[in-house]
Amino acid sequence: MAEHKVTFNHQAEPVVVKSGTLITEAARLAGIEINQPCGGQGRCGRCVVQVIDGKVRQRSALRLSAEDISLGYCLACQSIIEGDISVIVPEQEKIERRLVTDRTAVEVEPPLGYSPEYHQSLKRYFLSFAEPNYEDQTDDLSRLQKQLRVELGFKDVEIPLSLVRKIGSALREGNWQVTVYLNVNGSNESEPHVCMVDVLPFHCESDSPMWGAAIDIGTTTVTLWLVDLWTGVVHAQVSEYNAQIRRGEDVISRIIYADKEGGLQELQQLVVGTINQLIELACKRVKHYPVQPEDILKLTVAGNTTMMHLFLGIPPSYIRLAPFIPTFNQAPFLRAREIGLSANPHAIVDCLPGVASYVGADITAGVLSAGLDDTQKLTLFLDVGTNGEMVLGSKEWLVTCACSAGPAFEGAGVRDGMRATSGAIEEVWIHSETYEPSYRVIGGGKPRGICGSGLISLLAEMFMTGVIDKAGNLNTQLSTSRIREGEHGMEYVVAWGEETQHGKDIVITRVDIDNLLRAKAAIYAGFLVLAQSVGVPLEETEQVLIGGSFGKYLNIEKSIQIGLLPDLPWEKFNFLGNTAVKGAYFALLSQENRERIREIASKMTYIELSADNTFYEAFMSAMFLPHTDMSRFPSVLGAFQTANKLSVQT
Amino acid sequence: MAEHKVTFNHQAEPVVVKSGTLITEAARLAGIEINQPCGGQGRCGRCVVQVIDGKVRQRSALRLSAEDISLGYCLACQSIIEGDISVIVPEQEKIERRLVTDRTAVEVEPPLGYSPEYHQSLKRYFLSFAEPNYEDQTDDLSRLQKQLRVELGFKDVEIPLSLVRKIGSALREGNWQVTVYLNVNGSNESEPHVCMVDVLPFHCESDSPMWGAAIDIGTTTVTLWLVDLWTGVVHAQVSEYNAQIRRGEDVISRIIYADKEGGLQELQQLVVGTINQLIELACKRVKHYPVQPEDILKLTVAGNTTMMHLFLGIPPSYIRLAPFIPTFNQAPFLRAREIGLSANPHAIVDCLPGVASYVGADITAGVLSAGLDDTQKLTLFLDVGTNGEMVLGSKEWLVTCACSAGPAFEGAGVRDGMRATSGAIEEVWIHSETYEPSYRVIGGGKPRGICGSGLISLLAEMFMTGVIDKAGNLNTQLSTSRIREGEHGMEYVVAWGEETQHGKDIVITRVDIDNLLRAKAAIYAGFLVLAQSVGVPLEETEQVLIGGSFGKYLNIEKSIQIGLLPDLPWEKFNFLGNTAVKGAYFALLSQENRERIREIASKMTYIELSADNTFYEAFMSAMFLPHTDMSRFPSVLGAFQTANKLSVQT
Repeated sequence: MAEHKVTFNHQAEPVVVKSGTLITEAARLAGIEINQPCGGQGRCGRCVVQVIDGKVRQRSALRLSAEDISLGYCLACQSIIEGDISVIVPEQEKIERRLVTDRTAVEVEPPLGYSPEYHQSLKRYFLSFAEPNYEDQTDDLSRLQKQLRVELGFKDVEIPLSLVRKIGSALREGNWQVTVYLNVNGSNESEPHVCMVDVLPFHCESDSPMWGAAIDIGTTTVTLWLVDLWTGVVHAQVSEYNAQIRRGEDVISRIIYADKEGGLQELQQLVVGTINQLIELACKRVKHYPVQPEDILKLTVAGNTTMMHLFLGIPPSYIRLAPFIPTFNQAPFLRAREIGLSANPHAIVDCLPGVASYVGADITAGVLSAGLDDTQKLTLFLDVGTNGEMVLGSKEWLVTCACSAGPAFEGAGVRDGMRATSGAIEEVWIHSETYEPSYRVIGGGKPRGICGSGLISLLAEMFMTGVIDKAGNLNTQLSTSRIREGEHGMEYVVAWGEETQHGKDIVITRVDIDNLLRAKAAIYAGFLVLAQSVGVPLEETEQVLIGGSFGKYLNIEKSIQIGLLPDLPWEKFNFLGNTAVKGAYFALLSQENRERIREIASKMTYIELSADNTFYEAFMSAMFLPHTDMSRFPSVLGAFQTANKLSVQT
Repeated sequence: MAEHKVTFNHQAEPVVVKSGTLITEAARLAGIEINQPCGGQGRCGRCVVQVIDGKVRQRSALRLSAEDISLGYCLACQSIIEGDISVIVPEQEKIERRLVTDRTAVEVEPPLGYSPEYHQSLKRYFLSFAEPNYEDQTDDLSRLQKQLRVELGFKDVEIPLSLVRKIGSALREGNWQVTVYLNVNGSNESEPHVCMVDVLPFHCESDSPMWGAAIDIGTTTVTLWLVDLWTGVVHAQVSEYNAQIRRGEDVISRIIYADKEGGLQELQQLVVGTINQLIELACKRVKHYPVQPEDILKLTVAGNTTMMHLFLGIPPSYIRLAPFIPTFNQAPFLRAREIGLSANPHAIVDCLPGVASYVGADITAGVLSAGLDDTQKLTLFLDVGTNGEMVLGSKEWLVTCACSAGPAFEGAGVRDGMRATSGAIEEVWIHSETYEPSYRVIGGGKPRGICGSGLISLLAEMFMTGVIDKAGNLNTQLSTSRIREGEHGMEYVVAWGEETQHGKDIVITRVDIDNLLRAKAAIYAGFLVLAQSVGVPLEETEQVLIGGSFGKYLNIEKSIQIGLLPDLPWEKFNFLGNTAVKGAYFALLSQENRERIREIASKMTYIELSADNTFYEAFMSAMFLPHTDMSRFPSVLGAFQTANKLSVQT
């Protein structure tokens, strides 16, 4: 097969690749990082490069203008090398690696009455041995096993090879006194599953900390709480972007990336790398105690089903293929070393159970921490993160579904969309007579895009002021230059070039509006299907609990105005923050809570929306602002009539 | 700290080392291999190098002559670099890597009535699944677990993460039909320990082979049998020197080497490397079936306790320190991947149990294959390999001990000693009047040393012809130039320089004779202590079973003449070859046999000779030829009287 030379950024040394190679692959050989937010599907248009010499075959040129193409711009993930070429890779949009730690840290108190002896599965024992001699030549391992059996009553303690390697020196260095950590896991109390986590050559102080970590692996953000399992106190809370972002911004893009050669291993290492960074950072943040990553003996992990598959290096391919079957909901028993976590190599890694491909352990953990399985009130639990999952129910029953809302509210699939970092427009007000907007920017500087809450706000304002109609069409009759014909159809200018960071207009297009409508319609339709499935009117919901990092920034009023949230009194809405990591923390501390999560996972009824006709109908009805059936949104109807002094047909 | 340049073999690029570094360490940095048969203790004198420029500090110059030292020769493992030097490394004595396969292959028939369903712990099942759909979205792992539970009755099958990674594609590639291999291990039949070994995306033929391997890790030689577990047939038998040899020829040297930094990991990798070579070779030897290393699903391993520790990377340090406590006798449950074996990564590695630091799994396996635990006859079982272990007993009881005979019979500790490879004198006859020897050489060419059987033969002939007396003193009164004063005392010339490969005389020195006397005395004393411990006269032994690779080459008559073996009728001796690998093979095939080995290990009474006064007395009495108490050797007394026509005081 023919080989071609590819020169990147005028580097002296071209890389040599086989005919048919993609530019993204060649770039990796050249050691150049090209972000692929959509996972290399050619959808997001963020991997644009310029071919300045030679030609490539373009499988797709989506999001490129005719002028772009004439200048040699192409999508690196869609361009096939068929001859010698020279490529310029523009500086990639940096994924802002701002630590979001302090923004997300919350007050947490250990559960009342927490007792490590009673609740904690990780046990610490101090053992003393008779020294061997010529009369008693029992080998070290048998000596230890006998003590575990005779003194503690544990018959079959699982001791991994790597710990057997330590036993001989631990016994002697400790002068036949050792501290042993065991994980005692037993729903079945008569015959619990006991495994050794560590053996140390001394008797440590009886109330010294035992370190554990609760982790939530979000598609966008990974959060870790470092916990003293002896007292239950959270000593550090840290968060960081999931390093997988550069290989796809949503779960589908990640799955597609994982299907490529070496993709799964890469994604696994990226997320483990993120967690290892967080572990290190958290250890440094702990005051008064010197903590090392190796001191962490137990980790409890929540995350959506795709994240869990990637975390464990299990192919997630079938998650996105009908009928959407994950390889596992409950992961097997694991040690930290098996997946490369930089905790104690023998540390127990307890992956919490999920329910289905799109309702994962982040939701079961969230349901626990929201107390949904323990309330009499009819409750709607909603996790708006990169995905949209929801649960309806109470102590008696739970139904759940997930809607492929797409990442529109995270800024993807929207021309000037971006994540909620500095430079993002996070709130918009439109003057009802001049149609001139004003806006607030995260960080206070010039804007460079619009984040999720800004988009909701913008959509609501455009609707309430008549800039768009209930179907999302821009009103070209209005006397404002902000409504205009753009390259891809009609658009509304939110910020003129002179006001922005990059000097280009920030706009919202008709295409963007459609994407946002689809996203909000999917979520609202989900609510309706859940309620219908159990024959309860959605309006009877007694409380709405909103988890997820994005949840916090939702403006209830505007969200109701666009029909994203049901029209309930505002006091019924409650923001809970990261419910997943909190649920993982509860499960980390107590076996009882861990068991409750298992019960939640097994009793939740999952409704697969893609196989549900009522969902399609509900979705189509919700494609309008706020909804086809305005009687569902009486407060919006009222406000709309007040604002526009006109009557809307219902 | 000062750094010095070390140039090896006039290489252009010197290596730079810190002051205080040993030449062996510097050599490794320079990529030069220096054998250290004694593990770097400075005992064997085989790592001699010549310093041609600069000086080193020599911790020891054992085995070097004054002339050697004046020419700059020194022991690489004992020479400390304290300035710039230039070193010549003579071509190292090559460890002959001749494959000993065909020499050791033996006829083996599967045990009568072998039935994989009944005896074999490795089970093969064919499973068919209902395809998932929107009504049944059960995840793959749960679907599989349910089938195992419902169809096979296995409740808690252990499935490692690495197999979970395969399940999704196996189910779909196999169109929801898979072959599953389980290892079902149950002394306790109601609740066996079941673990998954592999899952394949098809239903294979119901009588196709299931591959397993039986392995004996000897200090010198590693042997592997490749077995079809379905029929029990041994399809290949291969052997190879243990690659650890270059890091120490006996277990003590290896333990010392393992205590050095990185030494344990190196030794572990060396033996695993040897086994992996054997696996590959064995697979190639199989006729009619295409076998790959990954097809091997279960391995049963025997070996002495030190070899087992090194194989698993468990520090063996305490084996050589009083009171001689191994870290384990029964290894934990293992998968091939955990130790780097190139079998199926999930293959079960079943390490057989040992009894004590110097009576390992090779002996328990040997006892099984010799049938010692199932005979009414009072039996002495002897394994003469690099170590000397012995067992006395029958169906009723078993006592065992190990004597630190040293590797004299393997040719080490003897000036012209060598292993039994080509060029080794393997048998000697001395003329009773001229004292001229004749000898037979392995391979038939010129000799270059004497191997173990040659040494026994030589010692016996020297004694029977009066060249040495019963204390091993050379008779200087005899009229032969072969008895002479050498550099290290008196010696007997076995071959003149003109007859040898290297042109130097091959001799046996007084020091060599003492080493051989100590070795044989230790073994015989072991027999006596075992017999005394149970109050049975050694003479009442009804059969002597000799295992071990060296055993085969023992000449019974000569061995009795020097007092190495007890004076029993020759027909009571039986050579069994490699009993360890055969025992491993039996255990590989049948759970019943595996359980028998466990029972053997637990019922054997181990006698620690170093803590036993009777051993010391017995040893001192056995330091004569054949023994102080000639009444124990009536046949030798008779032969001696006939040969020398004189009467010896008893």
